[in-house]
Amino acid sequence: MTITITAFERSPDGGKGLARDTRVRWALEEAGQAYEVRLVSSLAMKEPAHLRLHPFGQIPTYEEGDLALFETGAIVFHIAERHAGLLPDDANARARAVTWIFAALNTVEPPILELVTVRFLEGDKPWSKERLPLVVDRIRGRLGQLSAYLGDADWLDGGFSAGDLIMVSVLLRLRPSGILDEFPSLAAYVARGEARPAYQRAFAAQLAINASKPTAG
Amino acid sequence: MTITITAFERSPDGGKGLARDTRVRWALEEAGQAYEVRLVSSLAMKEPAHLRLHPFGQIPTYEEGDLALFETGAIVFHIAERHAGLLPDDANARARAVTWIFAALNTVEPPILELVTVRFLEGDKPWSKERLPLVVDRIRGRLGQLSAYLGDADWLDGGFSAGDLIMVSVLLRLRPSGILDEFPSLAAYVARGEARPAYQRAFAAQLAINASKPTAG
Repeated sequence: MTITITAFERSPDGGKGLARDTRVRWALEEAGQAYEVRLVSSLAMKEPAHLRLHPFGQIPTYEEGDLALFETGAIVFHIAERHAGLLPDDANARARAVTWIFAALNTVEPPILELVTVRFLEGDKPWSKERLPLVVDRIRGRLGQLSAYLGDADWLDGGFSAGDLIMVSVLLRLRPSGILDEFPSLAAYVARGEARPAYQRAFAAQLAINASKPTAG
Repeated sequence: MTITITAFERSPDGGKGLARDTRVRWALEEAGQAYEVRLVSSLAMKEPAHLRLHPFGQIPTYEEGDLALFETGAIVFHIAERHAGLLPDDANARARAVTWIFAALNTVEPPILELVTVRFLEGDKPWSKERLPLVVDRIRGRLGQLSAYLGDADWLDGGFSAGDLIMVSVLLRLRPSGILDEFPSLAAYVARGEARPAYQRAFAAQLAINASKPTAG
């Protein structure tokens, strides 16, 4: 059955790979699954046809035969559960890998997304400049804990898993800020993720769509 | 094998059921699984013994024989995967229920947790009062989308699932603010969750620990 995902017609990051379809593309590449992409404009994302697929009007979505899913974490888990390469066979190791998917999305990413709030959504507010260091300190707190846990291991729990795929994707957001480079072992961890051929293919595929577009405005 | 979870020795909410161990207790009650609770002080949570179980120094954790897990979403999913009552049998319906676990934790809860940031963590900052309405409007946006999706259904996708368990738990945080009551169908949805005998038992168990404690300070 054909797998179809959705992606931004024009990604807000202009092809830096931070839009969440890149995470799903990466998982599909690791799993060796071909897929098609339907591009959605920011207007179409809020219209009934797309809201039937994604109640919160976002991308990516995932369609395969009768099945329609949304939420990047759920889609990546679904791919990982059904194909080899993203979850270990041992039941306990598998449960721990799933734990890291949740930890990346629920514990590490939320403070990182606050950077977008303070800099862009509230970038014109009088408190933006004074609030930024508080947000950055919360991110540093989380990265310090993650770095202490990772130690000198290559991946979070044994071999590369869907948990690493999501964690690397989450940490990638931090590179432009310079915060990631304050934690050399995490910067190296992210670089290991980016070096994987499956990531390279996923990145190139999203770039091919976005590089050809004139930027908005 | 005995299941042991961790909970706050003294919950910051004084027993209102908002600490995340309540979500795990609820899942275990729905699944008919007995469990033991180890209470952890806020100091002990940051010490090596607990950090080995939970790299981010939080509760709850889950131990069962050789397996140790953290992250509420992962623990609830683990319980749901291994016992009847929290996930449908049909593979596609199961994947959709998992989607709602992720949606509750990654799309609906983050703006709700910002209420804690603006009111408490940054409650003494000069911008707190002016920032609050922005945070509340983002919550209203998400609840509006969720309410439109739920319509007049009892649960998010067919029968009650782990997705509903997490979504109800996330929305419960909003009751004191009055925002939940602006969306009557969501308030009724939360009330349906709270009326479940398994929730009642979970709530009573966490209250029994916290009600007997003098408040800090």
